[in-house]
Amino acid sequence: MNTGNSRIFKKLAENRFTTPLFLISLDEIERQYKRLKDAFKGRARVFYAIKSNPDREILGFLAWLGCDFEINTSGELGSVASLGRGCINSAPVKDIESIRVMHRWGVEHFAFDTVGEFEKLALHAPGCYVYPRLSVSNEKSIFELSGKFGMKGNDAVHALDIAKSLGLRPAGVTFHVGSQCRSVSNWQKGIRESARVFKACREKGIELSIVNIGGGFPIHYSNNHIGIESIAEPVLKWVNEYFGNNVELWLEPGRFISGPAGVYFTKVIGVKNGKGGHYAYVDGSVFTGLMEALQEQGEFPYKAEVLGKAGKSAKYKVFGQSCDGTDIIFNELSLPELEAGDVVAIYGTGAYSYAYGSRFNGLRVPQIAYLRGRKLIWRK
Amino acid sequence: MNTGNSRIFKKLAENRFTTPLFLISLDEIERQYKRLKDAFKGRARVFYAIKSNPDREILGFLAWLGCDFEINTSGELGSVASLGRGCINSAPVKDIESIRVMHRWGVEHFAFDTVGEFEKLALHAPGCYVYPRLSVSNEKSIFELSGKFGMKGNDAVHALDIAKSLGLRPAGVTFHVGSQCRSVSNWQKGIRESARVFKACREKGIELSIVNIGGGFPIHYSNNHIGIESIAEPVLKWVNEYFGNNVELWLEPGRFISGPAGVYFTKVIGVKNGKGGHYAYVDGSVFTGLMEALQEQGEFPYKAEVLGKAGKSAKYKVFGQSCDGTDIIFNELSLPELEAGDVVAIYGTGAYSYAYGSRFNGLRVPQIAYLRGRKLIWRK
Repeated sequence: MNTGNSRIFKKLAENRFTTPLFLISLDEIERQYKRLKDAFKGRARVFYAIKSNPDREILGFLAWLGCDFEINTSGELGSVASLGRGCINSAPVKDIESIRVMHRWGVEHFAFDTVGEFEKLALHAPGCYVYPRLSVSNEKSIFELSGKFGMKGNDAVHALDIAKSLGLRPAGVTFHVGSQCRSVSNWQKGIRESARVFKACREKGIELSIVNIGGGFPIHYSNNHIGIESIAEPVLKWVNEYFGNNVELWLEPGRFISGPAGVYFTKVIGVKNGKGGHYAYVDGSVFTGLMEALQEQGEFPYKAEVLGKAGKSAKYKVFGQSCDGTDIIFNELSLPELEAGDVVAIYGTGAYSYAYGSRFNGLRVPQIAYLRGRKLIWRK
Repeated sequence: MNTGNSRIFKKLAENRFTTPLFLISLDEIERQYKRLKDAFKGRARVFYAIKSNPDREILGFLAWLGCDFEINTSGELGSVASLGRGCINSAPVKDIESIRVMHRWGVEHFAFDTVGEFEKLALHAPGCYVYPRLSVSNEKSIFELSGKFGMKGNDAVHALDIAKSLGLRPAGVTFHVGSQCRSVSNWQKGIRESARVFKACREKGIELSIVNIGGGFPIHYSNNHIGIESIAEPVLKWVNEYFGNNVELWLEPGRFISGPAGVYFTKVIGVKNGKGGHYAYVDGSVFTGLMEALQEQGEFPYKAEVLGKAGKSAKYKVFGQSCDGTDIIFNELSLPELEAGDVVAIYGTGAYSYAYGSRFNGLRVPQIAYLRGRKLIWRK
């Protein structure tokens, strides 16, 4: 959502909203979904990674748009089971209960990156489609994933061979370049490695048909990012070059769809001059919706502004309301001079935000309101 | 709780427990509470900081033992309002709603560290008792708090003077040496600074009576720590030296009471040989109960063992089940060679654990069971 959208804020103010509050623009969800589909010229099937934001209104809206889902656990299945859309599982390690429940409900595609995992799948999801998660470069991605997940191409070929002998159906490969990826060549390396696995499998009589290039598509915070079109164009070229037309291209965006749709409104409850300059305390918290600020040690580049205030600005360290010393939302942010009662709008907070929400310190996970066209919808 | 308590594990196993599971020993809660009271020779009033673990069974049990509570927000008040014990508030910055609700319910003591805060108190908790939070050294504490909270002694005196003129009642001072503090002299500095504030206030005709030395009392993880007796003895000596008998000594332990009482049981769901050695994946997660592992970037020194397994050990990187790259419980831990199905018991996990629990990735906050004497009680 763009900053300075005074119509929205006026509407909110009319409802005398309490803070903290998350505002989710369903229009923005639609825009991002369509932008992604268009960038890939309708050639890619989109599975929304619901971990980024499993809000039921967002999921229902995406289902209505025709989007499919990527889920990790039986708990996540519960959020989309009734929506009538396709579901795949790309988490390389799952507990047995999740495998059984997902398979019983019709999930057919599962990822793995160890022999142990497809042995579990053979036992608890017999006959399912499997794809190994390849280890690829996560260079220049903000959240690195290659340290935790992934296997080498040669091992993947060997594993698919064994998987087949256990009655599983080799379907393709998947990889993940890391969240908020800033290097297009990571995708090229992943596609090239996928093509190698396809070729080596074909030589063993195993035909693969899916390349799942995962997520990691970056969005604009207050730093530089790459537009999705600048990723999609070379990716399509590489897919054509390495595979021709004989491949299904799958995407698993999470942050790209839900991130830009969210604004977090939080009220200043105290200001003081601290050791290192100006301090502001707000009624929000990293624990009730801004966990990525903690994971990134306060360096997260959310864009923010103070509603109805401009002019002379100062540099603030912004603390969340909890008593916790790690509850720091911004280490340093330029804002107009603050006083208690000011409302700060933090943009780009639709992904990995209230998905992590807890009730630490007796605080509440914020209320959520939705914007659709000119309508403001409050969750009851 | 000590490791190797085979009777407990046998009992658990008989109940065929599912993982992840938190076991809370009420006996251990009692032991720690009494040990603290004894160490301070009955001279200190104990307010359990419920943020560390607001579990209703723990709170009810502590109330029954005669313990009072330290709360931060109206949400935390809700957990103890019906228990009939004393409640104080030591969070220096609060939202107005919390102040109003707490005051209406009978909370009389409030902390502050800015002029703005006691102006709020004068308006929304008129006539309440106030104590400034002094800024003290947090040297050698694992979780630093002095960067976020606290004011200088001189400013505190000045502030109490103004507070009095606004109809508030100056009660004493509070300070916090930082969580898991390893330097006894931090308390000495805090007590000395408190005495200075008392003296300067007396000269202005303001009589103070409470020194709240906060929490931060360390517990044993797998690192060195200081026994509570080695803290209490000099603290009592300093209190006598600086104040004589004319002072109420207040404590706000959180971790010290709830931390040692918890064991987190989690099952291995996958193992592999990763880049940096052995990897283990468990069905628990930093997001469903082990947040401090994330806050400390995987360096948290919990003690852990594998149930029913000994012998040759290897070094493991232990990942939580979620898809999140930051979901790392141990960066390096020596454990007997693991295979899927092994249950790992992680000790000292009663504090700041499920207090932060979320439903990220559709995972569940673990079930909780309680141990009291020879009885194992399952929460329905």
